[in-house]
Amino acid sequence: MPLVSDIRRPSRKDPVVRRIVSSWRRLTGGRGVRDEKRTTLVACSGGADSSALLLALSTVSARARIEAAHVLHDMRPRAEAMADAERTAEFCAQLGVVLHEGRVTVAELRGNTESNARRCRYAELARIARSARCGTVATGHHADDQLETVLMRMIRGAGARGMSGIHSRRALDGCMLIRPMLGVTHADAEALCWRCGWVWAEDRTNKDVSRLRAALRSRVLPAIREIEPRAALHAVRTARAVGSAHDAVAARASALESGADRDENTIFFSRNMLRNEEPAVLAELIFRLHHSKSGGGRRDRIGQHSLNACIGGISDQSGESRCYELGGLSVRVEATFVSFS
Amino acid sequence: MPLVSDIRRPSRKDPVVRRIVSSWRRLTGGRGVRDEKRTTLVACSGGADSSALLLALSTVSARARIEAAHVLHDMRPRAEAMADAERTAEFCAQLGVVLHEGRVTVAELRGNTESNARRCRYAELARIARSARCGTVATGHHADDQLETVLMRMIRGAGARGMSGIHSRRALDGCMLIRPMLGVTHADAEALCWRCGWVWAEDRTNKDVSRLRAALRSRVLPAIREIEPRAALHAVRTARAVGSAHDAVAARASALESGADRDENTIFFSRNMLRNEEPAVLAELIFRLHHSKSGGGRRDRIGQHSLNACIGGISDQSGESRCYELGGLSVRVEATFVSFS
Repeated sequence: MPLVSDIRRPSRKDPVVRRIVSSWRRLTGGRGVRDEKRTTLVACSGGADSSALLLALSTVSARARIEAAHVLHDMRPRAEAMADAERTAEFCAQLGVVLHEGRVTVAELRGNTESNARRCRYAELARIARSARCGTVATGHHADDQLETVLMRMIRGAGARGMSGIHSRRALDGCMLIRPMLGVTHADAEALCWRCGWVWAEDRTNKDVSRLRAALRSRVLPAIREIEPRAALHAVRTARAVGSAHDAVAARASALESGADRDENTIFFSRNMLRNEEPAVLAELIFRLHHSKSGGGRRDRIGQHSLNACIGGISDQSGESRCYELGGLSVRVEATFVSFS
Repeated sequence: MPLVSDIRRPSRKDPVVRRIVSSWRRLTGGRGVRDEKRTTLVACSGGADSSALLLALSTVSARARIEAAHVLHDMRPRAEAMADAERTAEFCAQLGVVLHEGRVTVAELRGNTESNARRCRYAELARIARSARCGTVATGHHADDQLETVLMRMIRGAGARGMSGIHSRRALDGCMLIRPMLGVTHADAEALCWRCGWVWAEDRTNKDVSRLRAALRSRVLPAIREIEPRAALHAVRTARAVGSAHDAVAARASALESGADRDENTIFFSRNMLRNEEPAVLAELIFRLHHSKSGGGRRDRIGQHSLNACIGGISDQSGESRCYELGGLSVRVEATFVSFS
């Protein structure tokens, strides 16, 4: 008896398929690119979300090169992990999709297990994409993941950058990482699998589920979806709009930075010019300068309190000279200029 | 027997009082202003939130002029409304605070009852403030209200403007409306009333509670607060940061607008210049032009779909000429320029 019963490829006209495929085309260069140039490696755990992504992309013309990668983790019993891998292999075989197998060992790494697993998994996907000559890695993150992410960040007090949520596209070790399913929900993904006769595996390792995220997922999100069934799709729109506002802030900070005077270790700005900038722009400028000073330090190394004090000092009307220390970055505020070193 | 048992004025050193008072000072001009110049009318329903605000501001030096206003609505049984008004009067009398009484009739107005009530209440507060020569009206909106507001807007798909939530300060019919309690929670407000011996009335009309808001309040927010007790205070930080990013976007849109060429009814932009702007900036520019064209029309008169199509058309590489109609605003996209009329 085969592990997997017969799978029907979905119709190209299926509305969920159409939304996923058109998003995939938009994220891989838009109209100007032929499908066969959009070589894509789909991260497939065998769960409903990534399976739906593979099902949708399997409807694209045979000339397009869509391949899959399954990454084995050492975080659960080997037999269970192998069973999922085998079912995924048969799923791909039935769809006629080439499957690459990857492997990460995270159980013995120090630090946060979920974030180690995520980091290792993405590195492994990028490695497979390079060796398979795929320009793009696609993951099955969807609208409910986005709602969960922005909600989690909101109750942690994130700024506009954090509230832009899961990005639909970003660079990943020499290739491009895309999320073509942000415009569809988990229920859409399940329904698509169901229509194709695919009995998906419950996805237990392929997502990072912190305790906070798990608590929101089980106790808060079902109530929100019941109150507003389109909540997840709306949150995707919010995240995109806030992300665009953040990008405008980042562009302004970058323009300020490139217009500033420098000497060896110090960068100088006119105090009057900075005083007219929004706190969000000043915060972004400070993060950028901290980042280049510390050679890529994390944004959260600067405490919220010192950041606010420094921004307040730059913006106020006092002519007194003051100095703020922000995780290795010294900010001197003088009557007519502000210097960072 | 008096309606209200003896009330103790709180200590100035009470941490909740300190946070409210320092926020009040910041919102009414900062350090440069003497307290007696900060004439403030506190909107007081007799509920825990607005009572806590009045209790906190009653600790400010006797020279400061802090008065209160209670607005009667015609939306519930008269006896019940009058009982609250009388208890509020005695509360104010015990604190030595002058109380003004206002009255609004909304029951027979057409349209949404909650938004009619809100509009009429603010107009009445502004009228009282003018006649009492108070420059500022203060309301008891707090961190939990902010969390509720941004959550509600997120699941409706708001942009950065909407996600900036309840504003801590805005103009109101010739005076200033401030919310000095956004940095404290409803639980803080209740605890302060409790410490002062004030048995507050449950606040039944002084807040607009839509069905969506009521559903979130009863079913979602308690779970969020249990998962992350500081969720509301964090959401206040998020709303402020996103609001500042939106203000940067608005400043950019305003700069674009004032640099544009105009003839009688039309305003022209270089297509190349607009193409390099973030979608959030283009959306804000379109809203502004729509607003001045329609003489103050509402932002939501422009559908999300047509707005996105127009922004996409401005940003793409096509040289074709196209025209978009956005609720009375015509946008012509040409190879080298974009015109709005």
